[in-house]
Amino acid sequence: MPSLTNTQVAVIGAGPAGLALANVLRQRGIGCVLLEAKTREFIEGRPRAGFIEEWAVRALEGHGLAERLLREAQRHTAFEFRFEGARHLIGYGELTGNHHYVYPQTELVKDMLLAYVDKGGGDVRFGVRDVRLHGLESARPSVTYTDPVTGERQLIDCDFVAGCDGARGVSRAYVTENGGTFAGHDYGVGWLALLAQAPPSAETVVFGIHERGFAAHMARSAKVTRYYLQCTPGDDIEGWTDTRVWWELQARLALPGGELTEGPLIEKRILGMHNYVVAPMSYGRLHLAGESAHLIAPIGAKGMNLALYDAFLLADAYASHYVHGDASALSGYSETCLRRVWQYQEFSQWMSDVLHGPSAEPFLAGLAKARLRRLLTSRTARTAFAELYIGKDTGF
Amino acid sequence: MPSLTNTQVAVIGAGPAGLALANVLRQRGIGCVLLEAKTREFIEGRPRAGFIEEWAVRALEGHGLAERLLREAQRHTAFEFRFEGARHLIGYGELTGNHHYVYPQTELVKDMLLAYVDKGGGDVRFGVRDVRLHGLESARPSVTYTDPVTGERQLIDCDFVAGCDGARGVSRAYVTENGGTFAGHDYGVGWLALLAQAPPSAETVVFGIHERGFAAHMARSAKVTRYYLQCTPGDDIEGWTDTRVWWELQARLALPGGELTEGPLIEKRILGMHNYVVAPMSYGRLHLAGESAHLIAPIGAKGMNLALYDAFLLADAYASHYVHGDASALSGYSETCLRRVWQYQEFSQWMSDVLHGPSAEPFLAGLAKARLRRLLTSRTARTAFAELYIGKDTGF
Repeated sequence: MPSLTNTQVAVIGAGPAGLALANVLRQRGIGCVLLEAKTREFIEGRPRAGFIEEWAVRALEGHGLAERLLREAQRHTAFEFRFEGARHLIGYGELTGNHHYVYPQTELVKDMLLAYVDKGGGDVRFGVRDVRLHGLESARPSVTYTDPVTGERQLIDCDFVAGCDGARGVSRAYVTENGGTFAGHDYGVGWLALLAQAPPSAETVVFGIHERGFAAHMARSAKVTRYYLQCTPGDDIEGWTDTRVWWELQARLALPGGELTEGPLIEKRILGMHNYVVAPMSYGRLHLAGESAHLIAPIGAKGMNLALYDAFLLADAYASHYVHGDASALSGYSETCLRRVWQYQEFSQWMSDVLHGPSAEPFLAGLAKARLRRLLTSRTARTAFAELYIGKDTGF
Repeated sequence: MPSLTNTQVAVIGAGPAGLALANVLRQRGIGCVLLEAKTREFIEGRPRAGFIEEWAVRALEGHGLAERLLREAQRHTAFEFRFEGARHLIGYGELTGNHHYVYPQTELVKDMLLAYVDKGGGDVRFGVRDVRLHGLESARPSVTYTDPVTGERQLIDCDFVAGCDGARGVSRAYVTENGGTFAGHDYGVGWLALLAQAPPSAETVVFGIHERGFAAHMARSAKVTRYYLQCTPGDDIEGWTDTRVWWELQARLALPGGELTEGPLIEKRILGMHNYVVAPMSYGRLHLAGESAHLIAPIGAKGMNLALYDAFLLADAYASHYVHGDASALSGYSETCLRRVWQYQEFSQWMSDVLHGPSAEPFLAGLAKARLRRLLTSRTARTAFAELYIGKDTGF
């Protein structure tokens, strides 16, 4: 006979969305159980995003989750386009009054686990297997899973399930199998993600816009630098020798006064650039947050920011329900989230066209270069771009 | 033996580009012969564009070509989006300080013919057949054609040839056959262009953004209104009965408080939405202007404006050459033109995505609606849009 837990919200998945949500629920005194398929060690070591938008940092700070972030994160206020042999600094901080905090997702996950589990005594269960959702249309849904140690099925009765279990979790499937729509899109390009044991070659992020394809440079530490190279989606990683990688990086990124310092490549992965949006983000008493509802290619560094947006909004909606007896925020949750989701998807598409266009067919290359020139010559265009890049006023 | 004319510039084509150019050349005392394959009656009656951007009106005015236009043209400072059951006015005049003049292309052609031929005594030859270009790489090129009355070949020796003979003229072919590149693009949609014997149903241009497809309303006179309906590119015009047209227009455009007044349809044509850009716009002593160099679908009402931009720039470049002995403007002509051409192509693509996206596949529809909502909620985004819509500061 399975062991039974009663709670208010079962949160599936301890990524940024699930952890932010669980922390706020605990702070508000709302009962919560957090389930995670992986181990704590695994999720604390999984490298992902790193650019957090200022509004999201303010939200984390408001919930006491940004203490170390505010102490340690770099502030970014500008990046550089390199295009047709020239360097162009885009000072988006000055244009918007906002900036990015650069803080690895793994560090944020550690901070939020510390707050929820170690300091807060929150209920978290790692390594859970075969999670299943039941009765989401009913007033009292439940979640079952297999305990990794005993091998026994466990049952959680709850009021709500928050599906924060990413692209391959059960929550997304539950929504799409029950009438939700899935809108997918592929940019048709790949990115070769590289880590070089070499000092950064510039202070800012650098985007190389080139007819050979896009390339990027991102400082990571004094001795390690991240690079990206646009490639064919299904490319064989074996074909990308260190020599070839550095040759392409130099061709697409280096300029007189903007040379690249080379070093051994300690990581090479090929990322596909694809997206999807699931709508609605709710089904009965199940609400999706983060990548269970929307995947966004890393072009605009939007994925983790969207996950945090969903989580804080959903936490507020649960609080409205439990504290004020007001269900309107929960019933409007999906529509409110999707407005920002689509703004960020739109921004990423726009950015993809600029970054990847110049290596495409001549007409698309002409459009991409015109768009880029417009950014470089019109302060109005640059401001409109910067507001989207930093996620300012994009929740409409 | 052919009759021989000596001149400085042979201008091929008496559309807006050729006529504006010929007028300025004559005013500057530069010898010019204008050749046109059609009759004067034909080109004075050929309906085309009608929205002229303010900078272009100022340029026409500076050359004494806008007297009647300034007296008769309507000023437009706003249009309306209808989207998801609501009306949204975009006041681009207020956002930019600039506006459109609405003046049919046929009237501008009449004004420019009057100025060049009847008042100015300029040399124009209508109905010329089988125009050919010769020796554009040499110091003294020539143009030959067959006189429509005598049937004899005629020869014009000149310093330069201005190819203003449109999409199907000899000039474009001359450039692309001699190493010029042709970058083409098709939006993959058609527009059913309609004239209704019915009074306008709104004061402004109205764009209906709808899942059934795009539709537009444009006042033409007190009794005649132009409408557009997005359709399949190769659609059979016979299938578009008056009943079906009005049903679709009502579905895509009408709203409570924004009803449509119906009437007999006196014109129905299906337009393909495609574009191209030829580069460079010069080959030897041949310079292209207007649609010989670039076609732009009527989505943003940009075609005639670009033609006028080319013409005034080319006229200034010829004047620099003849008056100041400075060839730099002529040698930079193509690059300068193409900057604005690509800005306008980029704008039209952006606008096409907004107008046609909501009837496309779900992901593209989501992007289009996000873009539109951004316009409606962000003054910065609206200003950046308005500057492109009115062609402000787009010559970079």
